[in-house]
Amino acid sequence: MENQFFDEKLSENYKNIPVSFVRKILNVAGKKEFISFAGGLPNPDLFPVEEIQKSANEVLKQSAKSILQYAGSMGYHPLREWIADRYAQKYGMKITPEMVVITNGSQQAIDVLSRLFVNHNDGVVIEKPSYLGAIQALSAYQPKFCHVNLENDGANLTEVEDWFMDDGVKLMYAVPNAQNPSGISYSSQKRKQLADLLTCYNKFFIEDDPYNEVYFDEEFPEPVKKYAPENVAWTGSFSKMVAPGLRNGWVVLSPELVPHFDKAKQATDLNPNNLTQHVLHYFLTNNDLDEHLNKIRKKYAEQCQFMLEMIDKYLPEEVGATRPFGGMFIWLTLPEGVSSNNLIERTLKQGVVFVPGNSFFTDGKGQEHIRLNFTNANFPDIEKGIKIMAMALQEMLVGQH
Amino acid sequence: MENQFFDEKLSENYKNIPVSFVRKILNVAGKKEFISFAGGLPNPDLFPVEEIQKSANEVLKQSAKSILQYAGSMGYHPLREWIADRYAQKYGMKITPEMVVITNGSQQAIDVLSRLFVNHNDGVVIEKPSYLGAIQALSAYQPKFCHVNLENDGANLTEVEDWFMDDGVKLMYAVPNAQNPSGISYSSQKRKQLADLLTCYNKFFIEDDPYNEVYFDEEFPEPVKKYAPENVAWTGSFSKMVAPGLRNGWVVLSPELVPHFDKAKQATDLNPNNLTQHVLHYFLTNNDLDEHLNKIRKKYAEQCQFMLEMIDKYLPEEVGATRPFGGMFIWLTLPEGVSSNNLIERTLKQGVVFVPGNSFFTDGKGQEHIRLNFTNANFPDIEKGIKIMAMALQEMLVGQH
Repeated sequence: MENQFFDEKLSENYKNIPVSFVRKILNVAGKKEFISFAGGLPNPDLFPVEEIQKSANEVLKQSAKSILQYAGSMGYHPLREWIADRYAQKYGMKITPEMVVITNGSQQAIDVLSRLFVNHNDGVVIEKPSYLGAIQALSAYQPKFCHVNLENDGANLTEVEDWFMDDGVKLMYAVPNAQNPSGISYSSQKRKQLADLLTCYNKFFIEDDPYNEVYFDEEFPEPVKKYAPENVAWTGSFSKMVAPGLRNGWVVLSPELVPHFDKAKQATDLNPNNLTQHVLHYFLTNNDLDEHLNKIRKKYAEQCQFMLEMIDKYLPEEVGATRPFGGMFIWLTLPEGVSSNNLIERTLKQGVVFVPGNSFFTDGKGQEHIRLNFTNANFPDIEKGIKIMAMALQEMLVGQH
Repeated sequence: MENQFFDEKLSENYKNIPVSFVRKILNVAGKKEFISFAGGLPNPDLFPVEEIQKSANEVLKQSAKSILQYAGSMGYHPLREWIADRYAQKYGMKITPEMVVITNGSQQAIDVLSRLFVNHNDGVVIEKPSYLGAIQALSAYQPKFCHVNLENDGANLTEVEDWFMDDGVKLMYAVPNAQNPSGISYSSQKRKQLADLLTCYNKFFIEDDPYNEVYFDEEFPEPVKKYAPENVAWTGSFSKMVAPGLRNGWVVLSPELVPHFDKAKQATDLNPNNLTQHVLHYFLTNNDLDEHLNKIRKKYAEQCQFMLEMIDKYLPEEVGATRPFGGMFIWLTLPEGVSSNNLIERTLKQGVVFVPGNSFFTDGKGQEHIRLNFTNANFPDIEKGIKIMAMALQEMLVGQH
C-alpha cells in the first residue's frame, strides 16, 4: 500500500482543520519537570473530590440499572431542570428545561452548532484572537472567517456591523466572559449593542460561556442571550465549575432550534454520558455549590493577581498584559518585532511553556502575543516561570539592537 | 422574528440527515405499558451493577484528582492496552495500544471517520438494509450512497466490486457480525473476498463491530481487518459487553491514520469521558469478563430462540425471518403488498411497538421489513407481542383479498 493512501482520501473538510498547538504543547507541559502556563486546566486542588466520590456512590446505589442503560439524547431531565432554574433565576430570563440540551463539554455544543449552520463559504464573524477549539470546530465546515478586532471591552462593533451588512455572513462566535485566550470581557453596553445588531441584521450568535461562574470581584454582566433570545445559542460548562473529567456542558437554545440540534447531535454519539450526568446532578443538589464556587473564585483571583504582579515586576515595561475580571488566562502583547514562537524556543530549554499567540488567529498572525494560564501553577512556579520568560525576552531584545 | 429564521439558516449537511424513526419510537417504547421490540437496548438485568459500583468507588478513591481533570484525546492508555491485548490475542493480529482510540460509543468512531473521509458526492457503499446511526452520521457529509444487497452470508460482492470499479467510490461501511438491523453475519469466505477487493481496488472500509462479543453458539469469524489491515477501521463497543450508559467504544486504526483521526475528534469534544474509562478499566481487569459475557450470550441466545419459536408458531408462513448467530435483532420480511408502516399503526393501538424496515434504507424502500429486538423483553411479553402482531397481520391479509 502506498503511503499516499490516506492523503488522497482525506476530506476537504478535515484538511481545513488547523492543528492544535495547544494540544501538542500539552504533551510537553504534562511532564512533571516543566513549569506550564500552557493548557487551560482548572486547578485540581479545588476539585470537590470527596463530594464526587459520595455522589457516584449514591447514584449507583440508587439507580444503577437505569444509569447504565442508553438514555435520552437531550440529557438527564433533572440536570436540565437544575440548569434552567439556576440561570433563569440569576438573570431573570425565561429558560425552561426543554430549552437546555446536555453536551460533552461546551465543545460539543460548538461542534454541533457548526454542523447545524455552516455551509462551505458561509461567513462566520470571529474575534482576533479567538478560542482555538471553536476555530477547529467551525473550520471543519469550511466557512469564510470574517475577523473583527477585540478591544478591552469586547469586539469592535463597527467592524461587526460592517460584516453583518453582508448577506453571506450567517453567524458570529464569541466568548463574552473572560475570553480564552485574551481574558477580555464584554462591557454591559456592548452586549446590548451586539444584541441589537443581531436582531436588526437577522444573524445568529454562538455565545460561548464556559467561565460564567468563574469571576473574581463581581458577577459578569448579563448575557447577550437575554437581549436577543431567539438569535443566540448560549453554552455553559461544568468543566470549570466542578470538574472537566466529567465532560458535561450544556447549551440553551430557542425552542424551535432544539429538535434540529438534537437530531444533529444524535448522529455524533447517540446520547451524553449518563453516569456523569447523574453524578453531577447529585453533587449539585446535595452540596452548597456557591460555597464551592467562592473557593475557586478566590483562588483564581489570587493566582491571577500574583501573576500580574510578577509580570509587572519582571517583564519589560513595553510588554502589555490584559487585566481579566475572571477566567483562567492573561494575554500578553510583546514589543514590536519580537515573536512568541522564537521566545518559546528559548523558554522551553529552561523548562517553561506557554502558548504562542498565533494559535488563536486563523490568518497566521498574532506572533506578538502570548496566552498565559494562571490557574494551574503555584506561586513559586509563577514567579520562577515569569523570571525565565523575562530573561529570555531581554536576550532577544538585546539581540535586536 | 419570523419562524423561517432557522429554516433559512440551517446547513445543507444538516438537512441531509434523515430523521431517526427509532429515536421517535423509543420515546413511545420507553413507556411502561408498551411491549417493545423497538430500540436496541441491552438487557439491563445483565448489567454488572455491583462490580461497576465497586469499580467507581475504587478508582475515585485511588486517583480522583487525575480522573476529574482534562485528559488525553486518544483515551486512557491502560484501557487502550487492554483492548489491544485482548483482540491481538483473540485473532492473532498485530494491534498496539497506539492503534486504538477511545470514542463515545462506536457511534462517535463512525461520525469522526465520516468527517475524515467523506466529501460531498463521494461514493459510499452500504448494504440494504444498513445501520441507521451510520446512515445518519454519513449523511451529514452528503455522500452518494451506493447500495448493495445483503444476502444471508453477507453483502453481494459482485455488486460491491461493480461499485469499487468506480473511482468516485471512496469507502464502504458494513456491520459484518450480527448486523443491526438484519441480524445477518458475513461468512468467513466473504470476509476474505471483501478484503481482497479492498486492497485490489484501494478502497477504505469501516468495519463496525459492536456485537463482536455477543455471539450465541460459537465465535464470529475473524474480522475483515485481519486480511486488509491498512484499508480497514475496525470499531468496537463496551455498550453491549458491559453497559451503554458508560458511553465508551473504540476504533482500531492503522498507525498513519491515528493522528488524523485524533485531530478530527478533538474538534468535536476534546477528550472522551475520563471517569467512565477508569471505571471500565478497573471493571475489566478485576473481574472475569468472559464469565460475564457468557451470561449475556446464553441469555440472548435463549431470548432469540424463543422469539423465533413464537414467530414460527403465530406469524403466517409467508413471513420470512433471519436466524441470527448473535447480536440483538431478528429481521422479518412480510408477504408482498403488506407495509410494516401500516402494521405498526395497528399494533401501536394494542401496545406493541417495533421498527418498520424503511428506517434502514436510504432510498425510502424496505416497507416490507420489520426489525425486532429480542434482548429487552421477557418471554411472556415476547409471546404476547408476537401474537398481537400476528393478529394485526392476519386482518391486513384478509383485507387484501
